[in-house]
Amino acid sequence: MIELERDGEIFTLTMNDGENRWNTTFVREMAAALDEVEASEGAAALVTVSASEKFFSNGLDLEWLATQGEHRGGDREPFGSEFMALMARFITLEVPTVCAINGHAFGAGFMAALCHDVRIMRSDRGFICANEMQLGLRIPTPELALFRHKIPLNAFFETVQLARRWTGPEALQAGIVQQTASMEELREIAMQRAGLLAPLAANREVYGGQKEQIYGENAAINGPHGAAYLLRNSAQHH
Amino acid sequence: MIELERDGEIFTLTMNDGENRWNTTFVREMAAALDEVEASEGAAALVTVSASEKFFSNGLDLEWLATQGEHRGGDREPFGSEFMALMARFITLEVPTVCAINGHAFGAGFMAALCHDVRIMRSDRGFICANEMQLGLRIPTPELALFRHKIPLNAFFETVQLARRWTGPEALQAGIVQQTASMEELREIAMQRAGLLAPLAANREVYGGQKEQIYGENAAINGPHGAAYLLRNSAQHH
Amino acid sequence: MIELERDGEIFTLTMNDGENRWNTTFVREMAAALDEVEASEGAAALVTVSASEKFFSNGLDLEWLATQGEHRGGDREPFGSEFMALMARFITLEVPTVCAINGHAFGAGFMAALCHDVRIMRSDRGFICANEMQLGLRIPTPELALFRHKIPLNAFFETVQLARRWTGPEALQAGIVQQTASMEELREIAMQRAGLLAPLAANREVYGGQKEQIYGENAAINGPHGAAYLLRNSAQHH
Repeated sequence: MIELERDGEIFTLTMNDGENRWNTTFVREMAAALDEVEASEGAAALVTVSASEKFFSNGLDLEWLATQGEHRGGDREPFGSEFMALMARFITLEVPTVCAINGHAFGAGFMAALCHDVRIMRSDRGFICANEMQLGLRIPTPELALFRHKIPLNAFFETVQLARRWTGPEALQAGIVQQTASMEELREIAMQRAGLLAPLAANREVYGGQKEQIYGENAAINGPHGAAYLLRNSAQHH
Repeated sequence: MIELERDGEIFTLTMNDGENRWNTTFVREMAAALDEVEASEGAAALVTVSASEKFFSNGLDLEWLATQGEHRGGDREPFGSEFMALMARFITLEVPTVCAINGHAFGAGFMAALCHDVRIMRSDRGFICANEMQLGLRIPTPELALFRHKIPLNAFFETVQLARRWTGPEALQAGIVQQTASMEELREIAMQRAGLLAPLAANREVYGGQKEQIYGENAAINGPHGAAYLLRNSAQHH
Repeated sequence: MIELERDGEIFTLTMNDGENRWNTTFVREMAAALDEVEASEGAAALVTVSASEKFFSNGLDLEWLATQGEHRGGDREPFGSEFMALMARFITLEVPTVCAINGHAFGAGFMAALCHDVRIMRSDRGFICANEMQLGLRIPTPELALFRHKIPLNAFFETVQLARRWTGPEALQAGIVQQTASMEELREIAMQRAGLLAPLAANREVYGGQKEQIYGENAAINGPHGAAYLLRNSAQHH
């Protein structure tokens, strides 16, 4: 399902399960891969790719969720909270993370991509989309908050309320991805970017700590006081 | 003043009062039109247009505000709170809303446009502008919050503090409108977009409920906790 | 170090200290210049430029910070809080401010540029960058909040977490600066823009008061309630 390789400073996490739909087994294998990345030391970066030619990740494993009993997808009950917690680990990971979006990234797959530090998307095919509204489902607050804090407010609204399907070039223009590339070059460009970012992980407490400061509990930058107030009272707000 | 038509799933609200300046009568006719839209069921969308060739809406009815006694604009005292409440209804309306900005949209007219889900603006003429600073007036907090939550932060500041006049192409680039069109095509493009979005209103409780989640009281995504914290504690934040 | 000139409505503040690195003396001369601007009345605007051909401001005066005893940079102990407080004065200054970024703006120099109302950047050379992550340092919360509230969220993250070096054209595309210009035209364009904005300072209480509303203590637009809630309860939120 999930393969993790290391080549020098670069870890490559390959999602290799067809459409890469999320179930508990998938989440736990992913979590085990993050354990391995976190157990490393010094300069490093993580690149996430898909083995599929068409899908980055097509969302939740709906077939598994709709059935009962034994399934390779694992226990259904703990899925929701474990998936959300995995996303929290990704967004605050202590090493730089680069996501190569080679194809469709829907729902949970879009969330996973957004939890990386950098997104590079295939330019000619594939959509990223949070399609809950089309399915008549409300987006859970933590997912809304993720979209709210990662992309500009106009793109946020089109994404969550209008369920817009973004192509690579559109997603680049909207500030959802940072670069586009042809399918042939996508992986190599992602590896190069990871190599450039890897030195930032030399001090992991600093690199991860600042992500926590931005995205964690009582994130000061989300508080009621504006920048001027904080600048004036900087001694109380480190 | 205000005309509401229905053609299949699409409601068209036409502002037909010259420069379409806001007074209490205008607000109440608009509110009555929203009552009718809300009384419908199932897939639907609303398109707001202006009958003028030059103005979408040129702001408050200053002549009415400056006078006293009987006036077709109606009672002056309840205007402020009724106008703001109408904007709140628009921004959380349970059906998708598309605004065709055919000409100038100033002050209250800009606010009304921003309260729609999608804005399509004429490409060759017309400005959108919040001109309070030029008039030596502070923008009320609810209006600031509206700009703050609808457009990227750089565009927010230029809009509210520098009173920038945005052309259609500039507003598109800045993320304030989602599309531009020639005057000839504007209405048709808005209708087409509304037709594509209408199915999202099939479950109105979901579609409107999520807007409330984003723009309403104690909107969790505006709270002090970041996305990572909410993802970690997703059981408490639905 | 710091020179302030006035020509009609336009104040020009020239940073003339080589790389324009920040120490306590530099901060205090800058503060004295702001005193003079604030003591004026009526329409006015401030343009900040650098006398260097290569640097706008290259960050903190690290040589001064690393040494002890007498130094033209002044006392070291009060620097942090005085610098932050100066930035707070800039971001809420009662007259429009235009920053001409003629060359590199790093760290504290980037912050100073962001505290202006408008940034115009040289198009052919120079980078703006917050390089703390590269140095293994966390960014203080007030500085994070400044970046968080001035630029779109995608540009915010690339700036603070990935220490991206932005060229002029990239910074324009990302919404960090509002215009680019050739080195030859930069100063003149900044002066023209200042001339256009100067009338906004006619009512300084309004112009500065609204900046305080946006960036100050308990800035209502940063609170937990969304725009719809505030619109509905506008009587309590002016």
